Amino acid sequence: MGIHNYFKSLSDLEGIFRCPGKFKYQEHSVASHSFKVTKIAQFLGTVEEHQGTQIDWRTLYEKAINHDYAELFTGDIKTPVKYAMPELKELFSQVEETMTRNFIAQEIPEEFQAIYERLFSEGKDDSIEGKILAVADKIDLLYESFGEIQKGNPETLFLEIYEEALSTIIRYQELHCVQYFLENILPEMLEEGVIPYTQINKVSKHILGKKQ
Amino acid sequence: MGIHNYFKSLSDLEGIFRCPGKFKYQEHSVASHSFKVTKIAQFLGTVEEHQGTQIDWRTLYEKAINHDYAELFTGDIKTPVKYAMPELKELFSQVEETMTRNFIAQEIPEEFQAIYERLFSEGKDDSIEGKILAVADKIDLLYESFGEIQKGNPETLFLEIYEEALSTIIRYQELHCVQYFLENILPEMLEEGVIPYTQINKVSKHILGKKQ
Amino acid sequence: MGIHNYFKSLSDLEGIFRCPGKFKYQEHSVASHSFKVTKIAQFLGTVEEHQGTQIDWRTLYEKAINHDYAELFTGDIKTPVKYAMPELKELFSQVEETMTRNFIAQEIPEEFQAIYERLFSEGKDDSIEGKILAVADKIDLLYESFGEIQKGNPETLFLEIYEEALSTIIRYQELHCVQYFLENILPEMLEEGVIPYTQINKVSKHILGKKQ
Amino acid sequence: MGIHNYFKSLSDLEGIFRCPGKFKYQEHSVASHSFKVTKIAQFLGTVEEHQGTQIDWRTLYEKAINHDYAELFTGDIKTPVKYAMPELKELFSQVEETMTRNFIAQEIPEEFQAIYERLFSEGKDDSIEGKILAVADKIDLLYESFGEIQKGNPETLFLEIYEEALSTIIRYQELHCVQYFLENILPEMLEEGVIPYTQINKVSKHILGKKQ
Amino acid sequence: MGIHNYFKSLSDLEGIFRCPGKFKYQEHSVASHSFKVTKIAQFLGTVEEHQGTQIDWRTLYEKAINHDYAELFTGDIKTPVKYAMPELKELFSQVEETMTRNFIAQEIPEEFQAIYERLFSEGKDDSIEGKILAVADKIDLLYESFGEIQKGNPETLFLEIYEEALSTIIRYQELHCVQYFLENILPEMLEEGVIPYTQINKVSKHILGKKQ
Amino acid sequence: MGIHNYFKSLSDLEGIFRCPGKFKYQEHSVASHSFKVTKIAQFLGTVEEHQGTQIDWRTLYEKAINHDYAELFTGDIKTPVKYAMPELKELFSQVEETMTRNFIAQEIPEEFQAIYERLFSEGKDDSIEGKILAVADKIDLLYESFGEIQKGNPETLFLEIYEEALSTIIRYQELHCVQYFLENILPEMLEEGVIPYTQINKVSKHILGKKQ
Repeated sequence: MGIHNYFKSLSDLEGIFRCPGKFKYQEHSVASHSFKVTKIAQFLGTVEEHQGTQIDWRTLYEKAINHDYAELFTGDIKTPVKYAMPELKELFSQVEETMTRNFIAQEIPEEFQAIYERLFSEGKDDSIEGKILAVADKIDLLYESFGEIQKGNPETLFLEIYEEALSTIIRYQELHCVQYFLENILPEMLEEGVIPYTQINKVSKHILGKKQ
Repeated sequence: MGIHNYFKSLSDLEGIFRCPGKFKYQEHSVASHSFKVTKIAQFLGTVEEHQGTQIDWRTLYEKAINHDYAELFTGDIKTPVKYAMPELKELFSQVEETMTRNFIAQEIPEEFQAIYERLFSEGKDDSIEGKILAVADKIDLLYESFGEIQKGNPETLFLEIYEEALSTIIRYQELHCVQYFLENILPEMLEEGVIPYTQINKVSKHILGKKQ
Repeated sequence: MGIHNYFKSLSDLEGIFRCPGKFKYQEHSVASHSFKVTKIAQFLGTVEEHQGTQIDWRTLYEKAINHDYAELFTGDIKTPVKYAMPELKELFSQVEETMTRNFIAQEIPEEFQAIYERLFSEGKDDSIEGKILAVADKIDLLYESFGEIQKGNPETLFLEIYEEALSTIIRYQELHCVQYFLENILPEMLEEGVIPYTQINKVSKHILGKKQ
Repeated sequence: MGIHNYFKSLSDLEGIFRCPGKFKYQEHSVASHSFKVTKIAQFLGTVEEHQGTQIDWRTLYEKAINHDYAELFTGDIKTPVKYAMPELKELFSQVEETMTRNFIAQEIPEEFQAIYERLFSEGKDDSIEGKILAVADKIDLLYESFGEIQKGNPETLFLEIYEEALSTIIRYQELHCVQYFLENILPEMLEEGVIPYTQINKVSKHILGKKQ
Repeated sequence: MGIHNYFKSLSDLEGIFRCPGKFKYQEHSVASHSFKVTKIAQFLGTVEEHQGTQIDWRTLYEKAINHDYAELFTGDIKTPVKYAMPELKELFSQVEETMTRNFIAQEIPEEFQAIYERLFSEGKDDSIEGKILAVADKIDLLYESFGEIQKGNPETLFLEIYEEALSTIIRYQELHCVQYFLENILPEMLEEGVIPYTQINKVSKHILGKKQ
Repeated sequence: MGIHNYFKSLSDLEGIFRCPGKFKYQEHSVASHSFKVTKIAQFLGTVEEHQGTQIDWRTLYEKAINHDYAELFTGDIKTPVKYAMPELKELFSQVEETMTRNFIAQEIPEEFQAIYERLFSEGKDDSIEGKILAVADKIDLLYESFGEIQKGNPETLFLEIYEEALSTIIRYQELHCVQYFLENILPEMLEEGVIPYTQINKVSKHILGKKQ
C-alpha cells in the first residue's frame, strides 16, 4: 500500500516483455523501452527546439517516461492485437484506464493523486510534445523490428511492424525532427546492412596474404 | 495461412509466460502448463474411473490439452487482472472468443472448422470432464504458487493465488479424485517443508564426526 | 514419495532441454515438446478419422502426452547419440525402462501401477495410434530443425535432423494424415522462406516514396 | 556514425547488467535502472515542489535519464570497485569522461555537441536537482539490495550496499522528499517482511477446516 | 572434421548444464565446472607440494581440465542416475568410452591420437594426481550444493549431494590437502550462514538512529 | 576471508560475460573462456612438442587457466575499450594489478602468497609458454567472433575482432603450432560456411522425389 508499492511496481516493468510469444533474437522489456523512448524524445525535442519550436520540456519528459506504465496492469498485449484486429484496441484502452484509476486511488496519497492522474493519462495528444512522444515511440519500435530483420528473423510480423512504424512516423513529417530523422538518421540505418559470411573469407585471405 | 500457421503457433505458447511481470524463481510457459494440466487430468481421471465413475477420455484430453490455447492471442493476462478486478474477466473472455473465432476462420480448413470450434471452446463446463479440467488447472496453479513460497518468494500474491487455488479445488470435493488429492497428495506436499540452513552444519558435523 | 513426487517431476521436464549442448536460437523443453506432439497428433487423428479410419482417441492421447516421460531419468541424450551411433540406442532404452519401472514401483500407489506401466510403455507400436505418434513426434522435430535453419543456424546437424525427420515421415505415407501433411502443410512451410535484408530498403523506399 | 549509432547504443544499455559477477535472484540492466531512477526522481521532485521548493523539471529529467549513460563505455564496474577501494573511483571517472568526450566528438552532429556535453556531464551537483538525482539513484539501489536480501541472498555484499545506500540518503535529510521517504516509504518497505513457509500450512488448514 | 571440430565442441560444453531438470537458483555448465575443478586442483596441489609431496603438475592439469570432456557425448546424466541407481553407472561409462574412442578416431589427426587417448582416459586413478582430481571434483560439487541450500533450495537432493560429496572427500583424509580443506576452508564455509531478513530492520534502525 | 572466498569467487567468473552490452547470439562467460583457452593451449603445446620444442607444461597450464582471473575485479571491459582507445589499456592494467595484489594480501594465506603472485601475474611474456597463451587466447576470440558472424550478427565490431585476432595470431607465425593452425584448422573453419535456406527445399524435394 502506498508509494512503496508504486516504487516496487517499477521493477515489474523489467519483467514484462514486448510482443510476447513471437520468437525474437533480442527481448525488450517495457522498462527498457520507456528508457529508450525518453532518450529518443530528448533528441527529437532538441532538434525541434534548435529549429525554433518552443518545447515544454517538463511535459515532454513526463509523457515519455510514463507513456507505457499502464502495461503494468495488462501486459504488452496491444501490439499483436492491434495489428490483427484494430477494433479491439478500444476495449483494452478502457480496461487500462479503469485499472490505472484504481491503482492511483489505492496507492497514491491523496495530495498527489491529481498529479498522477495527469502523469498516467494518455500522452499522445495534439500538442508538440504529444506528437514527439508518438514519433519517439515509433522510432524505438522501428529499431526493434529493424534489429530483428537485420539479424535474420524470418517472421513477417516484424516487416509489418517496421512498415506500420515508418508509415506512422511519416504522418508527422511536418515536424522538423521527423524531417531530420528521415534525412539524417534513417539513411544511416538503411546503409548498415548485414555482414555476408563471405566477408570472413575475404578478410582472412587479405590478412593471410600479407604474411608472406 | 493454414495448418502450417497453426502448428507454428504452438511454439509461440512456449514464449508466453504465466503471471508476467511478477518476480518468480521459476518461470512457466503456457505450453508447459498445458502439458502439466493434461498429465494431472490424466491421473485425476484414472482415480475417478477406479471409483466407478464413467470418464469420456477423448473429451477429457481434448479439454485439457486445448484449455489455454486462446492465450496465444491475449497472453496470460487474466490471472493478475482476475485477482484485482473480477468484473473485467468477462471483457477479456469476449476478446478471446472473437480472436479464436477469427483464427479458426482464417487458418483452419473448412472441413475441420466445426471440430476446432469444439476443441477451442471453453472446457470448464458441468460435465465430469469439465470439472476434472477445472481441478487439474488449479492443482497446477497450486504447485506453481507452492513452489514460489517454498523457495522464499516474499510476494504475497503467491499466497493469495495458493489460497484461491485450494479454495476452488475444495469446491469440487464431491469428486472422488478431489478427495484423493486432499487425503493423499496435499498432505505429502505440505510435509515437504524447507531445508533450514542449520541442516548443513548438522550433516557436516555428523560426517566429520564419523571420520575419527 | 507418491503422487506428489510424480506431480512435482512434471515440472522437472520444463528444465530438460532437447538436443543439449548444440547452439540453438530457440530452446525447447521436453514438457513443451510433449505439448506440441499431443496437439499435432490431435490434428493428424482428426484428418485420419475424417477419411474414415477409426481412431481410439484415448490411446492416441495417452501415447502422445506420455511418450517422452522417461527422459526425466536420462535427459534428452538419445537424439545426438542416435545420429552418431545407432547401435547405442538399445542400451539407453534398457536404462530408461529399468528406471521407469523403479519409479512406478516407488512412487505410484499399487492400485494404479498396472495403468502407469501401460501409460509409460513405448508408444510407437504398429497400431494406427502408434503410427500417428511416430509421425507427430517427427513433425515437431521437423519444425524444430526447420526453425533453426530458417533463422540461420550454420550447424549441419539441423539439416541432418530435418532430413532424418522427413524421411521417417514418408515411411508412413500410406496414412491419410501423412498424405495430408505432405500435400497441404509441408508446401506451406517450404514457401515461407526468409526475409532478405534488402526487403527493408524496398519497403522503406516504397513508404518514403508515397509521402511526396 | 552519427545519431543512428547513438540510438543503437541505447539498446546496448539493455545488455549491461549492474553489479556483474555476483549472484543475484533478479538482474537489473543499466537501461532499466535509468528508467526507475527517473520515475523515482519524478516522485521526489513532486514531493519537494508540493512543499514549496522550486524545481527546474527539465534539468531534473535530464540528469536522471542520462546519469549512467557513460557506463556504455566501461560497464557497471564502479559499484564493486567503489566498495573495495574508493581511491580507484577517480581513475574510472577520468576514463569515462574521456570516452564520453570522444563519443560526442565522433557521433553527435556539431550543432548539438554542446547540448550533449551538458546532458552527459556528471549530474550529481549541489543544485536541488543534483541532490534529488543522488537520492533517487540510492533509493533504486536500496530497492535492488533490499530485494536480494528479502529473497534470501546470502551474499553480505548486498547488506553492505543497503547500508551504504541508506546512509547516503540520510545525508540529504534536509530535503523534504528525503523526510517524506524516511517517514512514509521506508517504513512500508520494512514492514513487508517475508512469508514463512509455515504460512502455507496455516492457510491450508484454515481452508480445509472450513470444508467440514 | 578434424581439430576444428574439436575446438568447436569445446563451446558445446558451455551449453551442457549439470544436474539437468532439477530446479536450481544458479546453473553451472560443464565448461565452467571444468574451469573451477582445475583451479581447485591447482590450490590442492600447491598445499600438497608445500608439505613435501611430489606433484607431477602436467598430469594433474591434464586430468583436471579434461575430466568431464566425455559429457559432450552423453550430457551430464550420471549425477542423478548415480544417486538413484548405482548399478547403472557402469553402463554409461561404457557408452562414454566407446563414443570417446570414436571421436578420437574421427576427429584427431593420427599423430596425436595416442596423446588424446591418454588425455581423455579416466583420470581418477590411485596416483596422487588422480586423488587430487577426485577431491577437487567433489569440492566443486560441495560448493554447488552448498550454494543451493544456502539460497533456500527446498529440494532434498542437494542435501544428499552435499552429504555424498563431503563423505567422499573424507575418504581421502590421508592427503595433506584434504586435511587443509577440512581444517581451514570448510569451517570458513560453514560459518558463512544466511542473512536473516530481520537484519535489514536492525541495520535500518541503527542508521536511522545515528541521524538524530 | 581466506581460501573459501577464493573458491567462491571462481563462481563469480561464471557470471561475468565477455564483451558486455553488444548483442550476441551466444554469450561466453570468463569461466568458460578460461576453460577453452586452456584446452586450446593444450593442443598447441602438443603440436609444438611434437615438432621438438621443449614445453614447460606446468607453466603453460598455469598461464592458461589463470590468465583472466583479474577480470573478477574489473569485469571484461578491456575488449571494447581496447578497440576504441588503445591508450586506455594501460590505465586498466594498473587498476587490475592493484586489485589483484590487494586480493592476495587479504585472502591468500601467507605461505602461498608468493605462489599466487606468480600465478596471477601477466602470463603473455616472451617465453614459448607465454606465446602459446597469447595465441590460444586469440584463437578462442577468433572462434567467438567467427561464431557471431556465421550466425548472422550484423554488428561490424565482430568482423573487427575477427580481424584483430587473426592478425595477432599471424604475428606468432614462427611457432610450429601457429603454422599448424593456419594450415590445418583455419581452412577447415573457413570451409564450414552457412546453410542457405534453399538447402531445405533441395533436401525436401530430394526426399519427396524418392518416395514415388
